[in-house]
Amino acid sequence: MKRRLLLVSNSTLHGGGYLEHCQQQIKDFFGHGVKRVLFIPYALHNRDAYAKTARDKFKTLGGGNTFRLLKSLYDNSLVSEIKKRVLQDGVPYMGSSAGTNVSTVSIHTTNDMPIVYPPSFAALGLVPFNINPHYLDPDPHSRHMGETREQRITQFHEEPDTPPVLGLREGSLLLVEGNRATLLGTCKARLFTRGNPTTEYETGSDLSFLLTDRQ
Amino acid sequence: MKRRLLLVSNSTLHGGGYLEHCQQQIKDFFGHGVKRVLFIPYALHNRDAYAKTARDKFKTLGGGNTFRLLKSLYDNSLVSEIKKRVLQDGVPYMGSSAGTNVSTVSIHTTNDMPIVYPPSFAALGLVPFNINPHYLDPDPHSRHMGETREQRITQFHEEPDTPPVLGLREGSLLLVEGNRATLLGTCKARLFTRGNPTTEYETGSDLSFLLTDRQ
Repeated sequence: MKRRLLLVSNSTLHGGGYLEHCQQQIKDFFGHGVKRVLFIPYALHNRDAYAKTARDKFKTLGGGNTFRLLKSLYDNSLVSEIKKRVLQDGVPYMGSSAGTNVSTVSIHTTNDMPIVYPPSFAALGLVPFNINPHYLDPDPHSRHMGETREQRITQFHEEPDTPPVLGLREGSLLLVEGNRATLLGTCKARLFTRGNPTTEYETGSDLSFLLTDRQ
Repeated sequence: MKRRLLLVSNSTLHGGGYLEHCQQQIKDFFGHGVKRVLFIPYALHNRDAYAKTARDKFKTLGGGNTFRLLKSLYDNSLVSEIKKRVLQDGVPYMGSSAGTNVSTVSIHTTNDMPIVYPPSFAALGLVPFNINPHYLDPDPHSRHMGETREQRITQFHEEPDTPPVLGLREGSLLLVEGNRATLLGTCKARLFTRGNPTTEYETGSDLSFLLTDRQ
């Protein structure tokens, strides 16, 4: 398994510039030898402008709307192609927010609005679990009555055969190299597993056990 | 067109009990003659417990997860049946949150997590527009970098042929009687129309123009 993945919770952290909070990890991840990066601008409507931004500044990689991104990957027959290139050929994959969601088992745990209808919620499956990016702790002062993020993920786990969900708080990222996964960034991550209590992991934690396929 | 709909943004308003903020409107809507209410408990996992709550207290009607609710309506072949009973036979329909989403053109503007995959995002189509329940204004003090609700609805309107979206803030409800629609409740509603500036409507406003089918 040659996979190398850098999965970022969010492109922008409050008070910083685009991808500023993880630029060192991005440099380390791609290294000095890299000449070309394939940027997939499907998650935003204006793809040319989005690609230009990325080209000019290597910024906002992979953010946008998860449904739009996954639908376009299917429409352009790229799902199995990307999967093969990443898992078999070892092409490094970096995603942030929407790009992180589509790298997992499915987009069932995205926070985005379902503005388009993809032919399936099954995603690239580069890892055998799901991620919830921008994971948010309940706000005790909120007067808003929508479900908390924890309640939503718990609803997901009421469904049968649902994989673990790693809640990546803003500022967190996950580095996957082959069968080793490490939590990086500025804060803890929260792991939800069907039928079990949730667990918090400190930054730097070895999360390789999540890569063991459940099948 | 015999339809009579009461579409509530949310089941619970901060500081109050279940459906307390709209109990007078519910009484007025169903009237004294009503003997039986069909409650659809599909939006939560434990249907028996949910139905019992509703039966005991006539509470939490229609809340839960929109994807789960719509998928179960399709799985049980109820979409066209409910549509016929409401539009042709004049059976009153009341929904709150998820139940409001599924009454509209589609669930493309729900806030819920896509925990299950329905065969379509097309919904009951009892009105020719979409609603965003629990509509939330941007919080200028938030440090969270997820999209605002307004940005999400704007993304929806980047897609072609998308219907207007009525943002119903918590405490708001929409009463539809035939071809007349009225905004009720405690606060203003925000209307998003593709290619046009957004508009605010005060409670009590006549929104019947939204019922004019665009086709």
